[in-house]
Amino acid sequence: MTRLLISDVVLHGQRTDVLIAGNRFESIGPQPDAVVDEVITCNARMVIVPPFYNAHTHAAMTLLRGYADDVELAEWLTDHIWPAEAQLTDEDIYAGSRIAILEMIKSGTVFFNDMYWDQSATVRAAEEMGVRAAIGLLYLSGPDGRTNPRSERSNAELLEMAADLPDRIQITEAPHSVYTVPEASLRAAAESAAEAGRLLHIHVSETRKENADCLAQTGRTPVAYLNDLGVIGPNSILAHCVHLSDEDRGILAEHDAVIAHLPASNMKLCSGQFDHTAARAAGLHLTLGTDGASSNNCLSMLTEMKLASLSAKIRSGSPTAARDHEVYEMATVAGALAFGIDAGVIAEGGLADALLIDLDQPNLIADHNLESNLVYAADSSVIDTVICDGRVLMSGRHVPGEEEILEQGRAAAARVRERR
Amino acid sequence: MTRLLISDVVLHGQRTDVLIAGNRFESIGPQPDAVVDEVITCNARMVIVPPFYNAHTHAAMTLLRGYADDVELAEWLTDHIWPAEAQLTDEDIYAGSRIAILEMIKSGTVFFNDMYWDQSATVRAAEEMGVRAAIGLLYLSGPDGRTNPRSERSNAELLEMAADLPDRIQITEAPHSVYTVPEASLRAAAESAAEAGRLLHIHVSETRKENADCLAQTGRTPVAYLNDLGVIGPNSILAHCVHLSDEDRGILAEHDAVIAHLPASNMKLCSGQFDHTAARAAGLHLTLGTDGASSNNCLSMLTEMKLASLSAKIRSGSPTAARDHEVYEMATVAGALAFGIDAGVIAEGGLADALLIDLDQPNLIADHNLESNLVYAADSSVIDTVICDGRVLMSGRHVPGEEEILEQGRAAAARVRERR
Repeated sequence: MTRLLISDVVLHGQRTDVLIAGNRFESIGPQPDAVVDEVITCNARMVIVPPFYNAHTHAAMTLLRGYADDVELAEWLTDHIWPAEAQLTDEDIYAGSRIAILEMIKSGTVFFNDMYWDQSATVRAAEEMGVRAAIGLLYLSGPDGRTNPRSERSNAELLEMAADLPDRIQITEAPHSVYTVPEASLRAAAESAAEAGRLLHIHVSETRKENADCLAQTGRTPVAYLNDLGVIGPNSILAHCVHLSDEDRGILAEHDAVIAHLPASNMKLCSGQFDHTAARAAGLHLTLGTDGASSNNCLSMLTEMKLASLSAKIRSGSPTAARDHEVYEMATVAGALAFGIDAGVIAEGGLADALLIDLDQPNLIADHNLESNLVYAADSSVIDTVICDGRVLMSGRHVPGEEEILEQGRAAAARVRERR
Repeated sequence: MTRLLISDVVLHGQRTDVLIAGNRFESIGPQPDAVVDEVITCNARMVIVPPFYNAHTHAAMTLLRGYADDVELAEWLTDHIWPAEAQLTDEDIYAGSRIAILEMIKSGTVFFNDMYWDQSATVRAAEEMGVRAAIGLLYLSGPDGRTNPRSERSNAELLEMAADLPDRIQITEAPHSVYTVPEASLRAAAESAAEAGRLLHIHVSETRKENADCLAQTGRTPVAYLNDLGVIGPNSILAHCVHLSDEDRGILAEHDAVIAHLPASNMKLCSGQFDHTAARAAGLHLTLGTDGASSNNCLSMLTEMKLASLSAKIRSGSPTAARDHEVYEMATVAGALAFGIDAGVIAEGGLADALLIDLDQPNLIADHNLESNLVYAADSSVIDTVICDGRVLMSGRHVPGEEEILEQGRAAAARVRERR
């Protein structure tokens, strides 16, 4: 078991040592006599904090970053995104996923919850690059009501890979949404999740149109409809939830469901503004995510925390809404908890996920309040070191192998353009 | 005259060379035989773009970054900001201004328009660190109607320094606002600006309360009132302008006045949301700024561009509002133009202000659209080199002397805490 000592680091304002053994924090406090394999010496110029857990994204969509911006949602999907996605190869998806994971590591994220229609390449990228991930078995029917054969094949591949995956990679059931998955499949996904002990990951109430169509077709809101089908539970991760009624919030609170709030994407596509204040008042389990790089267009949870706070302040009209500490918790410990990851705080016995923040950065001065500085002032340039599952993924802002990852990502992006 | 060659750099998607002579771009195109003092070799891994021009800030307020967040505006000012500011020394203001300028350089900003009540230390910091700045002669009366004696003294100092300042530092007339400056002083500021050929910098229509009070006291909106006093003109820089009527916009368009839009600060303090779409429709001259670090809390124009776009999209309900190109222009060439700086584009003959962007960064891949990537996806980590007025201020993300600047900034922040 590898032993890593983080020496003379700042934790909660105090200088200390942090000893990692294998993939867990073994001991926090002065370790003058520790016998270790590796030492990171901080000289009190680094602070150790939990990393970020990205509750909803589509990693491979980095290939479509900046491909189509500032257009209406329907045009964005129909004229730009879907035609380009239909032509992506496995190699493209692998390259795009690696760019996403590299960007996430560089901005302090060690876990992402992914939904895509061809997943084995994303699993391979996450496995190789050392991050945690939840990858969805997709349910998505075309206008003809049939499941995309490529997704069916890919789901089968994913299930075959499952037994050999490390603990840090989990599989979810991922019915895309109420408007793309028939009732029987939604029920089947919920049953399968319960049987296999998996999380269920779905888009819910992203747009007004989704709510209106669901109401017209089922007589219920998406949340009420999904609840009747057995989809809503403590194991369900509901992405967006922009348009919730009080009754919807009551259902989600009762079932302890998890909301993945995606402020940038909702603002950029004008889906609407999540009602953070009402969600907090209802006691809902809130986590934070970036959505894909084609609708955000960045995967930094630092930016996302600031947007979550500013968006809540505007929505409510109160500068006291979504305080720094609230959104910081959403991005860290609440995200880890939602995905059953025993991490998100720097504590003895917990899984060893951490960031070392370089205090010698102007956007962290004044240094009155570190959480405020991380939420409102910092960007990825302050993150020096990223540790996931006890392993150092980035050191001095360098990720081993990044040059090749960038080169292959650029080549895949060029292929996307050539096919246009 | 120093000659600097930027060799094999990408400009508008093409590899080229850029030759700077003194403080201007002399020639753009292949320069195989140029005789120069210094060469920056890019090997096509860097793109050259204009830097950012921050149209409104209070540099020294980095000392109050994170000092008080998530509180109501009145409480924020009265209980936290003003008491702390009243105790700042010249040394504090110098240290805080240097932190701000360092943060701005690191995030690609080469100019800031500043308003503060003791300015000589900020001028000294800007002069030494090589950036451009506009620094205001403050007009601000206390509740007793008298001007703060320290501001009077400081204004006199600033006027004494004026003759010896480099061209890159200009002085403005800076009446604080309609609610802190009596009518006679507002008129005097406008007259003084016209006589001396200076810009006039003022906060306008930041809050609903400001508008309501002005209406009650003068029977007019702040814009209409200021217009009647001769304050509104092509030389006036109006910060905030959150609550404008159609008539206000008509006045501003007629007089070709400049708006400094400050989306983060307006969102964080819940002042309201600037109506970008209406301002564009009225043909107003829009620039972008960060406001001070205690209400934003960061000074990165990259973040500010994204917020300007997202805020406009929400405000209007249309994802086509505030396209990437629009906000990019606000942050670059429109800002330079507003302050009479012949820069903001990479063009022969223009002042040599530029950024070299490191293309080997995951948040710039896919590389379909550089402007979109800079507005929506990038953060300061992509900026390798900053050039202002022909001089390299940052290279390889290092600013000469930054270690001492950080140390002194931390010491000043500690003094602020001790006095609390």
